[in-house]
Parts: sequence; C-alpha cells; structure tokens
Amino acid sequence: MKVGVLGATGYAGQELVRLLQSHKEVKDLYLSSSSVAGEDYESVYPHWNGQNMGVLQDENVPDLDVIFCALPHGLTASKTDAFLERNIRVIDLGADFRLNSAQVYEEWYKIKHPAAELLKEAVYGLPELYREQIRGQSLIANPGCYPTATLLALVPFLRNKLLQTNFLVIDAKSGVSGAGRGVSLGTHYAEINENFKAYGVGSHRHTPEIEQELSRAAGLPLTVNFTPHLVPMTRGMLVTIYAAVQSGVQEEDLRECWGQQYEHEEFVHVLPSGTWPQTKFSSGSNNAFLQLTLDQRTGNVIMVATIDNLIKGAAGQAIQNMNLAMGWPESQGITGTALWP
Amino acid sequence: MKVGVLGATGYAGQELVRLLQSHKEVKDLYLSSSSVAGEDYESVYPHWNGQNMGVLQDENVPDLDVIFCALPHGLTASKTDAFLERNIRVIDLGADFRLNSAQVYEEWYKIKHPAAELLKEAVYGLPELYREQIRGQSLIANPGCYPTATLLALVPFLRNKLLQTNFLVIDAKSGVSGAGRGVSLGTHYAEINENFKAYGVGSHRHTPEIEQELSRAAGLPLTVNFTPHLVPMTRGMLVTIYAAVQSGVQEEDLRECWGQQYEHEEFVHVLPSGTWPQTKFSSGSNNAFLQLTLDQRTGNVIMVATIDNLIKGAAGQAIQNMNLAMGWPESQGITGTALWP
Amino acid sequence: MKVGVLGATGYAGQELVRLLQSHKEVKDLYLSSSSVAGEDYESVYPHWNGQNMGVLQDENVPDLDVIFCALPHGLTASKTDAFLERNIRVIDLGADFRLNSAQVYEEWYKIKHPAAELLKEAVYGLPELYREQIRGQSLIANPGCYPTATLLALVPFLRNKLLQTNFLVIDAKSGVSGAGRGVSLGTHYAEINENFKAYGVGSHRHTPEIEQELSRAAGLPLTVNFTPHLVPMTRGMLVTIYAAVQSGVQEEDLRECWGQQYEHEEFVHVLPSGTWPQTKFSSGSNNAFLQLTLDQRTGNVIMVATIDNLIKGAAGQAIQNMNLAMGWPESQGITGTALWP
Amino acid sequence: MKVGVLGATGYAGQELVRLLQSHKEVKDLYLSSSSVAGEDYESVYPHWNGQNMGVLQDENVPDLDVIFCALPHGLTASKTDAFLERNIRVIDLGADFRLNSAQVYEEWYKIKHPAAELLKEAVYGLPELYREQIRGQSLIANPGCYPTATLLALVPFLRNKLLQTNFLVIDAKSGVSGAGRGVSLGTHYAEINENFKAYGVGSHRHTPEIEQELSRAAGLPLTVNFTPHLVPMTRGMLVTIYAAVQSGVQEEDLRECWGQQYEHEEFVHVLPSGTWPQTKFSSGSNNAFLQLTLDQRTGNVIMVATIDNLIKGAAGQAIQNMNLAMGWPESQGITGTALWP
Repeated sequence: MKVGVLGATGYAGQELVRLLQSHKEVKDLYLSSSSVAGEDYESVYPHWNGQNMGVLQDENVPDLDVIFCALPHGLTASKTDAFLERNIRVIDLGADFRLNSAQVYEEWYKIKHPAAELLKEAVYGLPELYREQIRGQSLIANPGCYPTATLLALVPFLRNKLLQTNFLVIDAKSGVSGAGRGVSLGTHYAEINENFKAYGVGSHRHTPEIEQELSRAAGLPLTVNFTPHLVPMTRGMLVTIYAAVQSGVQEEDLRECWGQQYEHEEFVHVLPSGTWPQTKFSSGSNNAFLQLTLDQRTGNVIMVATIDNLIKGAAGQAIQNMNLAMGWPESQGITGTALWP
Repeated sequence: MKVGVLGATGYAGQELVRLLQSHKEVKDLYLSSSSVAGEDYESVYPHWNGQNMGVLQDENVPDLDVIFCALPHGLTASKTDAFLERNIRVIDLGADFRLNSAQVYEEWYKIKHPAAELLKEAVYGLPELYREQIRGQSLIANPGCYPTATLLALVPFLRNKLLQTNFLVIDAKSGVSGAGRGVSLGTHYAEINENFKAYGVGSHRHTPEIEQELSRAAGLPLTVNFTPHLVPMTRGMLVTIYAAVQSGVQEEDLRECWGQQYEHEEFVHVLPSGTWPQTKFSSGSNNAFLQLTLDQRTGNVIMVATIDNLIKGAAGQAIQNMNLAMGWPESQGITGTALWP
Repeated sequence: MKVGVLGATGYAGQELVRLLQSHKEVKDLYLSSSSVAGEDYESVYPHWNGQNMGVLQDENVPDLDVIFCALPHGLTASKTDAFLERNIRVIDLGADFRLNSAQVYEEWYKIKHPAAELLKEAVYGLPELYREQIRGQSLIANPGCYPTATLLALVPFLRNKLLQTNFLVIDAKSGVSGAGRGVSLGTHYAEINENFKAYGVGSHRHTPEIEQELSRAAGLPLTVNFTPHLVPMTRGMLVTIYAAVQSGVQEEDLRECWGQQYEHEEFVHVLPSGTWPQTKFSSGSNNAFLQLTLDQRTGNVIMVATIDNLIKGAAGQAIQNMNLAMGWPESQGITGTALWP
Repeated sequence: MKVGVLGATGYAGQELVRLLQSHKEVKDLYLSSSSVAGEDYESVYPHWNGQNMGVLQDENVPDLDVIFCALPHGLTASKTDAFLERNIRVIDLGADFRLNSAQVYEEWYKIKHPAAELLKEAVYGLPELYREQIRGQSLIANPGCYPTATLLALVPFLRNKLLQTNFLVIDAKSGVSGAGRGVSLGTHYAEINENFKAYGVGSHRHTPEIEQELSRAAGLPLTVNFTPHLVPMTRGMLVTIYAAVQSGVQEEDLRECWGQQYEHEEFVHVLPSGTWPQTKFSSGSNNAFLQLTLDQRTGNVIMVATIDNLIKGAAGQAIQNMNLAMGWPESQGITGTALWP
C-alpha cells in the first residue's frame, strides 16, 4: 500500500507521518510540501534524524492508494476530482468537504467552493457516529477537532431526544497546536504562556459544522453558543457542554444512552461517575473521554469531553477513517494509551 | 497605622504583604502564621531576603487598626468577635462572612458557623457594586475570586432587568495559585502542566455565594450552572458567561449599562468592542477587564471577565476594602498596570 | 513471557506499563504497588480506562521471566537475591546496583547496602556502551537519567583519550517528572511554573555514578562538576558539557569519534553540524541526540545531549536491556519517534 | 521632568513605561514607535486600557531630559549625537555603546559602528560595579541581561584575584521574553513549550561584552565559554558559573568578598548558605540573588545568579542608571519585591 500526505510539514501532517510509520499496512510513504519541497524531512524536523525519511516532494502526486490532505481550506477541493479519477482515495483533514452546503461554506470560509458538486459524495468521517457510511468510501471529510469532541458527547442524546435544543452552550478549550505551525503574535510564546483567552467568540468556523451535525442528530435545525478558548499548553482539547434535559430525564438515562453508544468502542470511554476527564488522559493517543452530571439544582446536564486535538481531532481519526475505508482493523496504527505525565 | 496579616505565608497572605509594603498609610506590619511562627519571613520566602521582614508571630494579636484574615474557613469566624471588641477592623479573605445565611454556610462548608450572630453585621466587600455600604465598616467579607469576576459582569444587567434568569451558565477558568500553597497530587507540577480539567462540577463552594449576590441583584431567587476549571498557569482567572437577553434588548443596551456602571471606575475596564480580555491583562494588577457580544444567531449574550485571582480576587480587593473602610484614597497601594509579558 | 513491574504506579513504572503494552513478546503483565495494592489500575490512572489493566497486586511475586523494579533505593536490593534464585531476571531502575562499591553507595545514599555481595554480578545497563556485557544477563542496573545523557556524550572521547580530565563541567537540566509522583513543595505547580532553579549543587547522587563510569572510560580516577537544574516542563533532559581537548585535537576528530561509536545505533543520533538538540526531539521516544562545537577562542569543546528522562533515561532503556538480556530485537517495543509538538 | 522611550512597544520598552508610571520625578512621558506611530498605546497593549496613555509618536523627538532607546542595534548610535547636542541624556538599552572597541563591535554585530567616536564617552551602566562613573553621565550603555547576571557574580572575585582565569564556564538560561516581541518559529509557542534548548553556542553577541568587563576586572585579557539556553518560561534569567579558585582560597573568602561588595546594596542579595536562587525570586523586581559553593571534591567554585531579564536585565537597570545620572534616589520607581507565585 502506498500512502501520501499533502502538507506533511504542518503539525497535523507530521503527526500523520509519525502514526503511519507504525502502521502495518502502509509500506510506502509519499510526503509533500509546497513550501519546502526538495528539502530533507529531517532538515525541517530534526527529531526525524536517523529515520531516513527522504526528500519532501512537490505536488506531482504519483499513483497512490490513499492520500491525506492536510492543506489550507480551498486547496484540497481544487485537487480532489483529479485524485478520485485516478482511484486515489481522499481523506481531507481540512474543511472543504465537511459542510453539506456550498452556500454555508462560502458564508463562513469567504471563498467560493472549488468543487461543490463533490459535496454530496463526501462522507463525514466520525467513525463512532457514522461507521457504516464510511466503510469503503473514497472521499472522507475528517471532522474538525472541536466538532469531534462536541459531537461525541451530544449526538447520542439528540438522536434519543433526551435534551432540549433551545439553549445549547459549548464552551471549548484547546491547546495551541491547533493553530498550526504558522507564526503570529497570537501564538508567540511570551503572549500565550501564563495567559488564557477566548477567541473567535460567536464567529469560529467550526460553528456551522457543529450545528449541521447536531441538527442532523436532532432532526430539526438548531443553533449553538460555541466559544473556543486558548489554553497555555501545546496539545489537548476539552469541551464543557450545558443543556437542559427533556422533562423527566434522569442522569441515569443519560449515562445509559452513552453506555449503549460507546460500550464496545475502542477509542471512546465514559469514565466512572465522579471521575472527570483531563486533557492529559488523551494526550498522545486516539482516546476520547466523557463524563457528565445532572445538576439537580438547575435541571441542566453538564458534560465534559476530551480528546487530543492532533490525534482523535485530526491525524488519528484520519487513519481510523482510512482503516474503515480500506477494510482494515479499525485501530491499526492508532492503539496506545496517553503519554503520562 | 498598624496592620496585621493572619496567615501571612499563604499565597493570598504573601500577596497582601507585598502590596502593603508600598502602601503609604501602613507603617507597621504584624505578620503571623500558626504553622511556622518563630521563623524569619525570609526563611519561608527567600525572595524577601534583604527586606528585613522580621520573625513570623504566633496568634497573640497585638493592638492593631486593621487585621486581614487569610485563614481556612471557620478559623476567622471564631476570632472575629474578640477583634471587633478591641476595635480592630476585620477584613476576612476567607468564606466565613460572605453568605448571609448560617444555614447555607453549614450546608456547603459542612461545619457549624462559629459566629452566626455576626453575619448581619458583615458587609460584602465588592467595592464597585457596594461602595457606600463598605465605607467605615468594621467587618468586611472579601468576596471569592470566582464571584468577583462573575458579579462584575452580571450584576449591572440583573439590576437593570436586561437578562432572563432561567438559564445562566458561568464557565470559569482559574490559574493554579487559587488552590493555595498546600501540596497535593491535584496541584503536583507533572499532573497539572500541559493539562486542563474541570473540577468541583456542580459542587464548588463559590456557587451559593454567586447565587446569593445574583439573586439580590435580580430581586428574585435564581440558580446558576457554575463550572470551574484549572488552567496550567499560576495566576489569572477568566469567566465566560452565557445568558438569554430579555426580549428587545440589543448589544448596545448591554454595553451602555456596563458603561454607566464602570466608566468612572479605576479598576474595572470595559474593552473596546472586538477586543477580548486575556488573563494576562490583569496579572499582577488590581484591574478587571470585560467584554461581551450579543450572538444574533442564538439571541444570547456571551460575556468574558478577567481578574488576577490573587489581587482583585483576593489581596488587592482586600486593600481596596481597607482603603474604603478607613477613608483613604481607594486605590492607595494598588495602582499599577499588569506585568507584561 | 510473563513480566512484572514493582512500583507500577510511579512515573517510571507507569511508563514501563505503557511501553510493555505494545511489546510483542510480553503476553502477561504483573503489576504491583505497595501503597495501593488491591485497587484497579484505572482508579489510580484514569487514562487507562477501557484497557482492562486489572487490579494492582501486592508484593507476593508469582513466577516471572523478568521483573522490573521501580522502587526507592534500598528496597530492590533487599529482594533481589530471592528473585535471582527463582530464575527471575532483575532489571533495577533504581540506584541499588549502579555503583560498584558498597562503600561509595553508603556514603552517598546514607544507608547500608542490603546486598553488597551482588554488586559484582550486576552489569551497568547502558547498551550503546556495554552491549556485549548485557546480553543474557540476569541482574541489570539501569543507569540514572543524568548519567545516561552524560555518558553517551563523554565516554567515547575518554576511551579515545581526546579530552583532558582535570576540569569537566556537566551542567544538566531536567523536566520535573524526574522527581517522581510524590508531592512536595519543591514540585508544587505554583512554585515550579515560570521558575528555574539549580538543586543538589555539588551533592546530587548521580555524581558518583557519573564519575565511576567516566573514570572507567578514561582509565584513571577523575571528578566532575555536576550541577542539575529543574526546568518548568514535565519531560525531557538536556546536559551541556564543557571540557578541554587534548593538544592537537580538532572538532573533526571528535565528530569522527562519535560517528564511529554511534553510526549504526538505532537510538543515538549525532545531529548535522549546527543543529543543536532540543529536549522535545526526544520526548516520548527512546532517542538520544548529540551535538558539539570546538570553541576556537577557548580551545574547549561544548557538547549537548538530550534524552527523554522517563524513556531513554528510565523505562525505555530498561526495556532495551530486557531485549538484550532475552536475545530479542533490541528495539522491540521502543521504536517510534518523538511526539511533536 | 520629561522622559522619552524610543521603541515603546517592544517588551523592554513597555516594561520601562510600566515602571516609569510610578516614578515620582517623571511627569511627562513621550512614547514613540516607528512601526505603529499614530496608534493608541492601548490598541497595541490592551491591558493599558483605562490609563489614557495617548498616541504613539513618530521619531520627531521633542525636548526631553532623558531618552531611553530600546531599539535594534545600530539605530540608537545613529541618533545619539543629535540627542546629546540637545542636552538630552541618552540611556541605550541596546548594544551600541557597550563595547569599547568599534572593531570588536563590527566583528560581532556585522555592521560598521555608526558613531565610533562616542564610544569613549559612554559609561557601562552597571551601578553596583561602576556607580561613581555613572553619576551625572549623559551617555549610558545599559548592560545586556546575560552580562548583568554574570558580572555581578564574577567581577568582585576577579578584582580580588580569587579565581583562576583560564577556564571559565558560564552556562546561562533565559526566559523567552528576552527574544523580544518579533514573531519567529524559534519563539512559536508550540515549539518552545515543554522544550529546552541551547542556542548561539559559542557565538552569542553577549560574549565579547562579558569578556571585556571580566578582563577589565581581572586586569588581563581572558576568554569565557558562554552558552545561553532558552527556558520554557516568559521571564527570568539564571546563570551557573564554574571556575577554579586560586590556590588556598576558601569558600569563606569568596563569601566575604561578595559580602563586602554587596552588603549595602539594595538590589543585590547574597542568600544564606544553602539557599539557592530561583528565577522567580527576581520576577517582577529589580532584585538579583547570588549563591555559591566551593566543591571540595573538585576545587572549583560553582556560582548561581538570578535576575529578571526585563528589569535588572533591562528596564529596571535603565531607570537605576537614570536615577544615578540625575542625582535622584537610586531606587526611585524600582522598589518592590518579586511577584510570587
């Protein structure tokens, strides 16, 4: 099997390379980077010294079985049709195929969608929620990191009509690696360290993705209050979600619903009551952790979900999708527990 | 003027000492610690070497004008009556006099209140909201850090009936210094660094304090969803608050309400629209920063407030209260802008 | 193969468990902890939820092929003889068998050595320097983290008489996880974060271990100036070493010496000239990275070496030693590149 | 008194502004920035909101009593002559007037010195070592941060011939703020956090400055091994220094020498034996802390010195120099103990 990574020098791309190194089915890796094509991978990332990763390629993509696209939005969509015609399966870690509607895409991403006609062919690659649709697929939209954590918590409840949908609060916190490797004052060490801030309040581009999938689960259009924050740490993501339960719903009902959804899942774990997720539980692994409490005083449920934003929130989930698409064991290459401490 | 600090070796106590050092009216400092009485202050905190801070005293308190109590809950209340009889003004940085109801105190703090009869004499020391009641007072309950940030944002709106009160979400994030200097696995460096977690979900003791003051502002009993989180940083606190506005309320109305409340305040600053608070804006200073947006898609307002948890959230506000009680300029000893970066 | 870990809830012990999970030859894990025997592993470390790690055992050790001892010094030595008699190979991650001399041990560790007669049977388990002696061994002393990084850099030069030995400076920096999971003010988050300090200046217990091995390499007794420092990060170790070269030695000679020693090594990498190691190059992996420059102005060589203190500096190297002792591929279970970023 | 800051939006410039705000003799501040002239100071640094700092000026400097230049090297020197002719005292936080020799400057800074003729007029502004020369001066070169910490430790010993000078090792560690506010991959949060590295090994520009001043103190030309490292923290600097003592010198002699030099100093503190400096002891203050031990096993002394790189290493020392130049109390505006924790 020959697998390619476009954008192999970004953080998600590099994490893909690291994980693919230990994937038993992947024999040959094609790594490309538009900005540093021609350089050795080790010169970009010296921690690869000794691994003989070879030279970064330009974008004349050879024949491949699967290509992972970790590119800025818009770029992947402009190349996808050609890949599909060559029978290269496409797994997009970017945003180009996550939204069903080209109009919503254009509204939030401020560019015309370069391949709107392909949107209906793409499947939303969140395996625990859409496993059967992903098997054998050729065009998979890997979910955003915030949506992954959020949907794992909320979709089972909405599918089962356990929550009211008029006031959903998703207060999300992410490590800084989610902002990528491009330098800016907003990710300058001395401005981030010992600091905590909200950003993109009311305007983050993961909002329509979350709303699309929650609306699909609830069977009705809904909106959410989604506020991302930047935590002074490199990896990790935690979302705290607040919702009113439907009349008569007890904590036990919620817990049972999660249990039915996830008890046989390898990567999603509902913690024992009273043990709350910490981002470090997921760091370095494809694992997600969930917890909730039904606050008797307010009648609202408070949920917490954590993932590693670069693994279950990006590269790990992308490999999980490849495994499903190719018919391999779903956890191939992405087993392993968090690095602690 | 002679001023004392009980609990001078805890983080809030030490911050009091640091600030009092530059306070023009304070000539004489009495520092005590039950655990290390008899030791030099510099042996506990070597960064004080060269300042001749003297020996830590036991709790045989001499005649003082003001005493700050930075002690575990329950302890201050057991000593307060004796201090007041000696005409020593008491400013309690702990929880003993924050709640009006001894019953609520006993329910959340799990001990019998040692001086329930004094509760009605205590004033809640949040100067920007209760300035006139604090002037000249002898028993002041310094607010908790989470309540301070939360109330600065919400009280003006509730007093002016701008918000609905049935679904209030207060998602709060704090630096680790708020947990104090006592060692535990929960504040062990390797377990906190590169990690983010919720704690005390649905059960944090600042909940009844927040609800008491919000209910007072709204003129009706209300409950809140309050979830604190621990950020891998030492100082700083940020709260993100979600609420539905009353019908017809516009963002402009909210901004104007804050403006009227705070435009002449020295320590509370509403940032220009679009500039969101960061905890570092407050670090090392008594300043609070506020921002909001009315999300047109959901009809809810999202507010963010930041303070330094040890200054406006503890020692700085305590000095502000002393200044008010004594009739000194309110900002004496606590001017100064944040340390950046 | 059945493998045991004594002290499975410490940081080094837990890292062993994580690595052994993916080791192909290890079918059965016996995990013990004297302090929390009887508890589920997941209750101590919730990030293991879903992995069915079972209950922590007490120290009635069953029949095993290999036992890793991650215990306080003194404890392992008191149990070793019994293990060896039962044909259980012992790999000690502690200090009990690192020093050849019981007298030196007692001087630095302040206790009588519990099994001095076994010292001559133990081999010092630094594979890149003593590979042949380790093969097939039954009692292996896993080196300390500081000595590992230091010896990888210096031993080849001393064996080849390239350095003067009268003034050796080893300025070492470690992440906080090296101090273990026991809580103390010295590892309290708020006292370590945004802080940097030296500790154990002139008195750290790794000093005699470093001196023993350097003296062995040089063929003469020597002493070193070794100063460890604590870096506000969880993982990683970097040592900066200063030495005068022997007359006529050029940078090229030094580089060639390292090259001959390490060019076929899987875990030790000499970086291209001008690329200096960073601790993160090693984090999460068993890799070490080396660099040097011969400062023409002073005639001294400056070397830098990095490792992950918990992997090449503890658990990873212990598994490397097990692989050598058992005759398995040396990198079994410990391949993999650093987690970045 | 009217005081100006050129480069008021860099980290050292902003720290000057913060400190000057509480300086009793400074009534009027002129703040300029070539890159963002015309913008409000609060728009660059929102934590100044509410302080009415006004608009950043261009570089048409009005009549001033003192001007602080926090500019890239080369720029200050090109303006200095004009300032001096207008009787504006110049305190340069950059490197232009630190080296006595234009040739050495050109060798290390790779540009022709723009005002070599002024070098002999400039005084090296390290008050504790050159106090009398600084009084009343018009052109003061504020020392680099690494030289400040290093010289405070070493100069007294070299002046008193207590050390050998053939093998001096200065292993230095700095917080990231020393690299300034300009963005780069080398100061990108995700590449620095949880990471530690050496940089500029054998080539850092503070080397000739340190050697110049140490040679002056020793009365003979000497060279040093100086290696800076980057610590994942924002503020703080610690240097660990190794040297051989002259025959017969005891630890007591060294301690007495420091004592004589510093016992009456307000900002330099020799800690009690056994208490080692931590960078946080200095953070937010103009204080330096020193400690040493004479390692009996090697005959070498190990010294540690800490400062806040932006205060005693930049802005605070600049104000100390202004106070000396103007004849004001030397600690005006820079009293205060470190922010802890």
